[in-house]
Amino acid sequence: MAATINPPPRNDLFPFELVRPELERVEISIREQVRAFDPAVEPYVAYICNTSGKRIRPALAILVGGAAGGVTDDHLKIGVILELIHMATLVHDDIMDGANTRRMVPTANAKWGNALSVLLGDVLFSHALTLATDFNSIDICRKVGNAAREVCQGEIIQTQRRFDLTFTKAEYFRVIEMKTGALFAAATGLAANLSGMDAEIEARLHSYGMKLGTAYQIYDDCLDLVGSEEVVGKTLRTDLIKGKLTLPILNLLETASEAQRIKINKRILDQEPLDLPILLGIAEYEGAIERAIDTALQLLVDCRADLAPLGKSVHSDALAQITWFLAGLLEKCRK
Amino acid sequence: MAATINPPPRNDLFPFELVRPELERVEISIREQVRAFDPAVEPYVAYICNTSGKRIRPALAILVGGAAGGVTDDHLKIGVILELIHMATLVHDDIMDGANTRRMVPTANAKWGNALSVLLGDVLFSHALTLATDFNSIDICRKVGNAAREVCQGEIIQTQRRFDLTFTKAEYFRVIEMKTGALFAAATGLAANLSGMDAEIEARLHSYGMKLGTAYQIYDDCLDLVGSEEVVGKTLRTDLIKGKLTLPILNLLETASEAQRIKINKRILDQEPLDLPILLGIAEYEGAIERAIDTALQLLVDCRADLAPLGKSVHSDALAQITWFLAGLLEKCRK
Repeated sequence: MAATINPPPRNDLFPFELVRPELERVEISIREQVRAFDPAVEPYVAYICNTSGKRIRPALAILVGGAAGGVTDDHLKIGVILELIHMATLVHDDIMDGANTRRMVPTANAKWGNALSVLLGDVLFSHALTLATDFNSIDICRKVGNAAREVCQGEIIQTQRRFDLTFTKAEYFRVIEMKTGALFAAATGLAANLSGMDAEIEARLHSYGMKLGTAYQIYDDCLDLVGSEEVVGKTLRTDLIKGKLTLPILNLLETASEAQRIKINKRILDQEPLDLPILLGIAEYEGAIERAIDTALQLLVDCRADLAPLGKSVHSDALAQITWFLAGLLEKCRK
Repeated sequence: MAATINPPPRNDLFPFELVRPELERVEISIREQVRAFDPAVEPYVAYICNTSGKRIRPALAILVGGAAGGVTDDHLKIGVILELIHMATLVHDDIMDGANTRRMVPTANAKWGNALSVLLGDVLFSHALTLATDFNSIDICRKVGNAAREVCQGEIIQTQRRFDLTFTKAEYFRVIEMKTGALFAAATGLAANLSGMDAEIEARLHSYGMKLGTAYQIYDDCLDLVGSEEVVGKTLRTDLIKGKLTLPILNLLETASEAQRIKINKRILDQEPLDLPILLGIAEYEGAIERAIDTALQLLVDCRADLAPLGKSVHSDALAQITWFLAGLLEKCRK
């Protein structure tokens, strides 16, 4: 647990605050995307583009830009493109989950039904990939397209392997690298590319984003189990209900007694939701969460090392701060 | 009705027969796309890639290639890319329509449910757009992306304007140009581009595809009303049930008596399916179909003229034959 030995440096501001002006320009640009659409389609796109979001992917692209010689319009643009892909996947996620609200407002499927929402996700998706052609770089287009494909593939495997006892930890890591890591890694890697960094540094920044995204997904998976809905502000325990075998559960299946494992396995095989009280009653449950947190913290240690080629700057410092911020959130998941 | 004055030349072979070997290579290439996917995702993609289809878009790209100096691998590739986009939209269409079978086999949603099928469409879509980067041409990537976006936009407007009495003919043409014309036009226009034709000839071939696609969609819309399910081999009368106001219906609303129009309008306003017996009972119904057929035939006359820059060849002749073939199908829709 090397990650928790060094106390995180004091940082009262969330690291994204450093690039607040640039993020505001991203926000404006996202809203302006509606202009690319047919007037009849605009209102639907506008509804999605006016919803808020943490804009993690744009923030990462901007911070890498700042740390690699200076933020340019290109960094904002790649942020917008990757955020649009992320938004398209959320529109489709909400259909699949039958979700009625996201961030306090009705989802597209709740407002206009599934048929229109499938198409709305598609149109956002195709727009984002078309927008990537503005860079006049085949390399960028290919990497954006590959990242989009990875996200969809990760989601397919996750959907396919629900309630599946043969799902391994290696497969879990592969899925979260695809569904969450790929877009984080595209943001940081492509931002380095757009700053003219060489392929080796681009690969290191890609690796930073991949590990950060993976750690973030593990945090999200732990939060689904240990978080309080009032504090987190979203519906929790959904992974259990949907039969998603996340890292804490896979850890638990590894260490639970034979009798407990048989009990959990039976529910999974019967495709019954895993019930939190059942899990809480298992002695090894807390340790399973702890170990998932430790895994995420180790990823954060590793991704910090990937920042070395950037040298010291307020922006590279903010990229490190993000990892400490997430480490802090992970620590709060401990009992 | 200039289109029917010249008798179509004798042609016993469907014009695609000329490029049967190239279409077989397209078929193999479509099946080989599964290799680009994660092994866990492969079986789903393989299922879709192994379904048959008319492969109209690849055939058009190949024929234009042949007429513009010779078919190359690039023509086959653009055909595969556009067909994959078309296949992705069919996967999503089947979800929206709740369709259980397509071409005699279960749809993806019937086999694996809506959630997985949404993602399967997405992954095909992102793969097709990524594949376009193989051309190392930003221009091609942009045009493929734009065509994909047009298809989705056309489908959105169509979905949105069901049971909508304010839907105009101008809007109808815009919708079918987007949802069907765009990919036909991309096939013929980009094939000319890949043959090194100048922008003006590319525009003419793009126009050929756009008009052909539009005429084809009008034919499909007429067939939905006048076809026999046994002969056509698919479920018909679905446009009426879904409240899609197609050209024959828009024609009918223009010419029906006040009393008849009120009757039809009421059903549309109440979102009740339009019933074929009701339509058949209206004196102007036959004329409405006839005029839709005439409109499509005129589009075919116009698109034949767009072939002029290609000069005479077996391939350009086949491109003309396609229009005559479709004209023949349209004539069969007359009473």
